[in-house]
Amino acid sequence: MTLPPALLNLLRQTFAADACSFDEAERLAYAYDNSRRHAMPDAVVFPTEHAQVEALVQACRAHRIPVIARGRGTNTTGATVPVDGGVVVSFERMNRILRIDPDNRLAIVEPGVLNGDLQQALKPLGFFWPPDPTSSPWCSIGGNLACNSAGPRTVKYGSPRENTLGLRAVAGTGAGFRCGTYTSKGSTGYDLTRLLIGSEGTLALITEATLKLTPKPSGIRTLRATYRDVGAAARAVARIMAQPVTPCALEFIDDVALKLARDYGGEGVPLAGAMLMIEVDGEPDTLAGAAEAVSRAAQGDGLEELKVAQTAEETQALWSARKALSPAQRTISPNKINEDVVVPVSHLPELVDGIKRLSAKHDVLIVTFGHAGNGNLHVNLLPRDDAERERAHACLAEVFALVISLDGTLSGEHGIGLIKREFMPLALSPETLGLMRNVKAAFDPDGILNPGKLLP
Amino acid sequence: MTLPPALLNLLRQTFAADACSFDEAERLAYAYDNSRRHAMPDAVVFPTEHAQVEALVQACRAHRIPVIARGRGTNTTGATVPVDGGVVVSFERMNRILRIDPDNRLAIVEPGVLNGDLQQALKPLGFFWPPDPTSSPWCSIGGNLACNSAGPRTVKYGSPRENTLGLRAVAGTGAGFRCGTYTSKGSTGYDLTRLLIGSEGTLALITEATLKLTPKPSGIRTLRATYRDVGAAARAVARIMAQPVTPCALEFIDDVALKLARDYGGEGVPLAGAMLMIEVDGEPDTLAGAAEAVSRAAQGDGLEELKVAQTAEETQALWSARKALSPAQRTISPNKINEDVVVPVSHLPELVDGIKRLSAKHDVLIVTFGHAGNGNLHVNLLPRDDAERERAHACLAEVFALVISLDGTLSGEHGIGLIKREFMPLALSPETLGLMRNVKAAFDPDGILNPGKLLP
Ligand SMILES: Cc1cc2nc3c(=O)[nH]c(=O)nc-3n(C[C@H](O)[C@H](O)[C@H](O)COP(=O)(O)OP(=O)(O)OC[C@H]3O[C@@H](n4cnc5c(N)ncnc54)[C@H](O)[C@@H]3O)c2cc1C
Ligand SMILES: Cc1cc2nc3c(=O)[nH]c(=O)nc-3n(C[C@H](O)[C@H](O)[C@H](O)COP(=O)(O)OP(=O)(O)OC[C@H]3O[C@@H](n4cnc5c(N)ncnc54)[C@H](O)[C@@H]3O)c2cc1C
Repeated sequence: MTLPPALLNLLRQTFAADACSFDEAERLAYAYDNSRRHAMPDAVVFPTEHAQVEALVQACRAHRIPVIARGRGTNTTGATVPVDGGVVVSFERMNRILRIDPDNRLAIVEPGVLNGDLQQALKPLGFFWPPDPTSSPWCSIGGNLACNSAGPRTVKYGSPRENTLGLRAVAGTGAGFRCGTYTSKGSTGYDLTRLLIGSEGTLALITEATLKLTPKPSGIRTLRATYRDVGAAARAVARIMAQPVTPCALEFIDDVALKLARDYGGEGVPLAGAMLMIEVDGEPDTLAGAAEAVSRAAQGDGLEELKVAQTAEETQALWSARKALSPAQRTISPNKINEDVVVPVSHLPELVDGIKRLSAKHDVLIVTFGHAGNGNLHVNLLPRDDAERERAHACLAEVFALVISLDGTLSGEHGIGLIKREFMPLALSPETLGLMRNVKAAFDPDGILNPGKLLP
Repeated sequence: MTLPPALLNLLRQTFAADACSFDEAERLAYAYDNSRRHAMPDAVVFPTEHAQVEALVQACRAHRIPVIARGRGTNTTGATVPVDGGVVVSFERMNRILRIDPDNRLAIVEPGVLNGDLQQALKPLGFFWPPDPTSSPWCSIGGNLACNSAGPRTVKYGSPRENTLGLRAVAGTGAGFRCGTYTSKGSTGYDLTRLLIGSEGTLALITEATLKLTPKPSGIRTLRATYRDVGAAARAVARIMAQPVTPCALEFIDDVALKLARDYGGEGVPLAGAMLMIEVDGEPDTLAGAAEAVSRAAQGDGLEELKVAQTAEETQALWSARKALSPAQRTISPNKINEDVVVPVSHLPELVDGIKRLSAKHDVLIVTFGHAGNGNLHVNLLPRDDAERERAHACLAEVFALVISLDGTLSGEHGIGLIKREFMPLALSPETLGLMRNVKAAFDPDGILNPGKLLP
């Protein structure tokens, strides 16, 4: 595709020369994301103002040219790959923190602000923004909102949907608008804010976000529990979540993952049937009681060892297995298939058992770990060659079917993007998908925003 | 209007004789709600099954007949008044608690379950559902969801939007569908769940809800602080919300309201410039520290007295002023205009000052009290005769303008309904309203669901 001359003119008028690129090498850099899929865009623009985004979407709509929002391209689902060409809108220069307002527990940011930069800015004020993907130093708030990205703290503090008050955005119609509030509560019309969160750039481009801040608890305590087998650990998760003290992290690591991590990370990593990392936070005088409560719940049939870190070094050491996991997986398989399915917590034992069975049946190495407090497990298939890759795909379809049969859903935090959209009919009925298509048309009647994503 | 014969037939086929009424006396009972507006429906039906609701909406759509969902009619905005006639769908018989699942911290309920009945059922299991309107014994979960109704606990635990996992519903298209998840986290397509919450029956009829439960903290401590004037109290609210211990209730009562409550409730009610009721909850060993932290923040210029309840009786006594307020208002004005505006917490001092100014300017009695931790104040205008009623209406428009100028919004928890919709353009731009209209059309293309509500 080549862009129509009238559109090229508008791009050149709207964006300074260094904020608008048609150069092949530069376009190539915006052709792929962390999914390793790729497709060339026709242009890349770097807005610094809301008005530029409005002008751009209006012009692209007039010419029916795709518009693909991009934060930092760290998503794992191909959600930023411009499958039909068009204009990639990279928000990396729209990265100002516009206001931090501790009195009202809110921050107003542009979408290109990195999650980690925001957390740094909030720290001295005693606040944080709960969504904490592991990619925090490299991913943008815009991407976090568009994917409803989360992390370990979500079990206690919620995802972007629970931590965003309002947005400014440009719909696929070309209309710029604000939705939501600057208040911590509101009932004034339809909740467009939450509708945009998790919509993966298919309804509107977010140009500003009002985020709800949470006071940072001053203390934290870390526990590590190892179990005889994955079932015993999964049952402990259900027990921990059924008592009143909600941990601020409750991470699960299965035996395969532990072995991998130990090969890579050394003796500090325990060998066991499964492991839980548990953190509680609060004011200093409450920590001992909280740690005691979750320890009690962690105990039960199959517990092998329960360690409580007493110092910062011990905390580091306890987390070493979890930290070694990512690099360790890379050494095994460059073609890791990375899923983040989620089931109700009480079904975790059946999920982990079922995954073991599918791994054996299809003869594919699978490691399972993740945010067990939310029932959200990363199921990583690690095929080592082409034959295994083929088997992995067959296995994946069965993993999703298992998840749905356990009242679960396809994604807890990574979203659907390009890669999972063919599986959407497993999770959602034709009626629900039909209404989602109507909503898409309500915001983007010509289908120019991020075509080929999310909806099958 | 008389209903078309084909529709009458369908109603008689779908609903048993005692679940479908055309009787004038019975229709009259469903003509009004707590707003004291009224308009006659042509029929009232009492479904007990999702399938009946689907059949009904499909038939009404075919004949372009309005369908008005109704819980218990306790809303204050005329949201259930059938202004264009049609069929009122009263969910009062669809009132089964289908499942309480403490392991997964969720409950599945039909929409007609009363909020208070659900709380009673959850109590022995150690859980609660956070939304707690004062009307809890009489209002339905369906109504709570449709209005995003809240209460004192929202400051710590959130509104229905933060406490609902998934829904089953029937859209205005006639399509029955499920949205959301049974999991505490999800990123699988558009968030239709939150879109329906707060939509006041204008997008879909909710037939089942999966609610997120919260473990009930085992202890609570109550404090009462009185201040020289409303400004001093409002500044204390901002200080309390800027420190890490979030109270589970932070209620404000102004001087006018205190005087009223004392006239009605007796000497136990303090006379002061303003009063805060503060509660903290948690495990027993954490309460002293939490109470200490909020006490520190409550102190400052203008504090007159700070009392901490030591016994259940003392707690009751501290709350007596708040409790006396509702009946006291009724003695003054049968035509109370009841608003629930919300501003960022730090703007509360300007809001309460501004309201005092407007009360003087228009010579109308206004009492102000409410959920100050969320910046959500009930602004009740109490006109005593026709002349005052007229002045009250002029005053109200200025109250809304003030709220908007302070970055606030029209409603914190009551919604828009019939009564506030003319003010929507104050709060939302034409672009935002335009997108809301598109969303309405996406769910209800023929505009049969609760016509004349929410959107101007
Ligand atoms: C090492 C690593 C660890 C990770 N760990 C986690 C984790 O723990 N939890 C987790 O949830 N995810 C994780 N991820 C995935 C990824 O980091 C998140 O999805 C992140 O939110 C993406 O942010 P981004 O800025 O890179 O967005 P991108 O990848 O650029 O975009 C993601 C989606 O957001 C849309 N988008 C971006 N900006 C806007 C905007 N302004 N307006 C509208 N739409 C927009 C895009 O169109 C696209 O659909 C991880 C990724 C990596 C590489
Ligand atoms: C004394 C008193 C105290 C109150 N205190 C509070 C308070 O503290 N906080 C607060 O927020 N509100 C309060 N309210 C207002 C009111 O109780 C709430 O709005 C409540 O949620 C309404 O519930 P309901 O069952 O009566 O719904 P209704 O009044 O019957 O309906 C309200 C709206 O919900 C829609 N609706 C009802 N059921 C469904 C369904 N199944 N599907 C789709 N739409 C549906 C209706 O169409 C309507 O738009 C109070 C009211 C009274 C009378």
